[in-house]
Amino acid sequence: MSLPLGYRYAATYAGIRKQQQDDVALIVPDRVAQAAAVFTRNIVQAAPVRLSRRHLQSSGGKVAAILVNAGNANCATRTGDSVAMASCRTVAKALRTKVRYVLPASTGVIGVELNPKLLVEAVPKLAAELSREGFEAVARAILTTDTRVKMASEQVHFRKGTVRIAGMAKGSGMIHPNMATTLAFVMTDAELPAPALRQMLMRATERSFNALTVDGDTSTNDTLALLASGASKVKPDAKERKVFEEVLTWVLENLAEQMAADGEGARKLIRIRAAGFKATEDARRVARTIANSPLVKTAIAGSDPNWGRILAAAGYSGVAFDPSRIDIYLQRVLVCRSGVAAEFDEQELKRKLDEPEVHIRIVQEGKGQAEARFFTCDLTEGYIRINGSYRT
Amino acid sequence: MSLPLGYRYAATYAGIRKQQQDDVALIVPDRVAQAAAVFTRNIVQAAPVRLSRRHLQSSGGKVAAILVNAGNANCATRTGDSVAMASCRTVAKALRTKVRYVLPASTGVIGVELNPKLLVEAVPKLAAELSREGFEAVARAILTTDTRVKMASEQVHFRKGTVRIAGMAKGSGMIHPNMATTLAFVMTDAELPAPALRQMLMRATERSFNALTVDGDTSTNDTLALLASGASKVKPDAKERKVFEEVLTWVLENLAEQMAADGEGARKLIRIRAAGFKATEDARRVARTIANSPLVKTAIAGSDPNWGRILAAAGYSGVAFDPSRIDIYLQRVLVCRSGVAAEFDEQELKRKLDEPEVHIRIVQEGKGQAEARFFTCDLTEGYIRINGSYRT
Repeated sequence: MSLPLGYRYAATYAGIRKQQQDDVALIVPDRVAQAAAVFTRNIVQAAPVRLSRRHLQSSGGKVAAILVNAGNANCATRTGDSVAMASCRTVAKALRTKVRYVLPASTGVIGVELNPKLLVEAVPKLAAELSREGFEAVARAILTTDTRVKMASEQVHFRKGTVRIAGMAKGSGMIHPNMATTLAFVMTDAELPAPALRQMLMRATERSFNALTVDGDTSTNDTLALLASGASKVKPDAKERKVFEEVLTWVLENLAEQMAADGEGARKLIRIRAAGFKATEDARRVARTIANSPLVKTAIAGSDPNWGRILAAAGYSGVAFDPSRIDIYLQRVLVCRSGVAAEFDEQELKRKLDEPEVHIRIVQEGKGQAEARFFTCDLTEGYIRINGSYRT
Repeated sequence: MSLPLGYRYAATYAGIRKQQQDDVALIVPDRVAQAAAVFTRNIVQAAPVRLSRRHLQSSGGKVAAILVNAGNANCATRTGDSVAMASCRTVAKALRTKVRYVLPASTGVIGVELNPKLLVEAVPKLAAELSREGFEAVARAILTTDTRVKMASEQVHFRKGTVRIAGMAKGSGMIHPNMATTLAFVMTDAELPAPALRQMLMRATERSFNALTVDGDTSTNDTLALLASGASKVKPDAKERKVFEEVLTWVLENLAEQMAADGEGARKLIRIRAAGFKATEDARRVARTIANSPLVKTAIAGSDPNWGRILAAAGYSGVAFDPSRIDIYLQRVLVCRSGVAAEFDEQELKRKLDEPEVHIRIVQEGKGQAEARFFTCDLTEGYIRINGSYRT
């Protein structure tokens, strides 16, 4: 991975989670970075989400540090706000920067008081251990029920030089559009102002994290932050910004796909494409409803080409369509033509459904051009095992 | 069970499902009954649903027979309409009644052609075997992945005499508001006209089946029919009709609760009550979102008092509320007060959550009077096992 210039990272174990495994981390640009972030749309928002939002607003999109912890969401507790504030103050002091330049982020259990001492005491240690190479350690420290570290990076070669984008993400289980228990931190060394970052981030999120669902739940803590250090000294012009945004979207898509593939108990990544609808929003809703259907997701887990469940899910999506114009493809095999069963080799298709990536395509013929993608994972017994005993 | 007067029933094995177990049944009022029905709101509707709707419309709410089969949904196939029509014709001929007085209903796999011969050949046998006592046999014949027969009955004593209501239902897995893979047939011997039945059925359904969810999926075949034979010779007046509707609602609630308790893999019935919202629709949406949350349902399966997930689900329901005014009760124990953790004995509550019935109550203080109920079941590994291999 080629990391963006101008950042240092550190992670350590503060004792917030039970297992002895890094649970707090710091991301620090060499100079105050331009920044943008998107947050959960859940009405119940964790203290760090509310504080990060305020800090970004009052700083006009400037970030000198991200402090993140796993193991406790710092949400729905009496002391949530004061804990978040205390931790930001400590970081500001250690790094000699302004409190409003610090973004806090947390993930973990809701409703359990987070001991501020654990965070506050970890900060000097983190500040002392910052290094250019700490990227992966931070990516590891933010994980909860994830089984794999999630990182992605890209380079873009512009006329005036190369810029780098690298992101890390944590997310499993509750992942869903409007972003559930997703933490993602994306760094670039391009020189870009906060308002431009914000526009790009919002559009790129729509096409990546917001097209992802694991179980339909959304969380109280989701945070996706984008920092631009400017350390490459390359300032993309209007045209180059389009390219930058496209590459940023790839990085986010890549992270989102890693999250889907690592959904709790997941064995398969499912890609859904809905096409032939009148409006993009219709196509999106059909794809999303299929992605959220437990019956579809268990069928895929069992390599069962039960396309009737896909058709039925589309049917209750709330989108008006003509069932007799619907074609459905599973692993590129036509299984439903004009709303009724097509001829296909069931045994062969079952074998194809054993692959780690499953493609579902649903197309309405002759009614429109709009299409949309969505991705998710299969629903296995592992999901139940993990979530029946997460807290205790 | 005291059965309504004026009905006969029969069930037999027609070879539609693989296991040798009755899969086709007939319900026949002695005289043409007044009737009403509600059907799935899925855009994809099975042939028998579309035909039943047409028949009820053209007959003005008259039914001489219900023909029902399990094992094949007769949906999304080339021959669906002609199979449904052929089966109704055969019934009309055997019972010497009009084709439009026959309601067909089917449940089972989607997209597999249903051999009309199997249905047509079973009808004379069914007609010959009709009996007053066949109620339970029919209730058994309509089951698919259900593990238990679902029946409920009530009597109402009016001034002029007693009327009876008895219902049977089939439903597991896909059960959800707007009625997924629910078949329910409710018979009464009261004397009531079709338009009154229709009004009462719609209101009673809203408070029972439409407040039930197992996995958020809705089906292509849901049918809930209410027949009134008039054989009691008791004709409820305007005031008595209100009582009748209340008792009808109990019967439907009872059936819906049996369905929730028998959700695929379910071990616990979950009752959710949301109160203190501005509008009933808001309370309903909060309760429904909690009922549909896989994270809440797996926590309950694991007897984990993880109320944070309940709060988070309410938060993404789309209903505006003030999190700092939310109280949550689990098994009548206050676990969250004013949006933050309350003190409670976790071990004791875990034991209480092992009970087969779990109560969740979420209340907003001082913002409104509206409340709503919803029920569902826990989400266990059994659900995955059943649905990963239902078709094959």
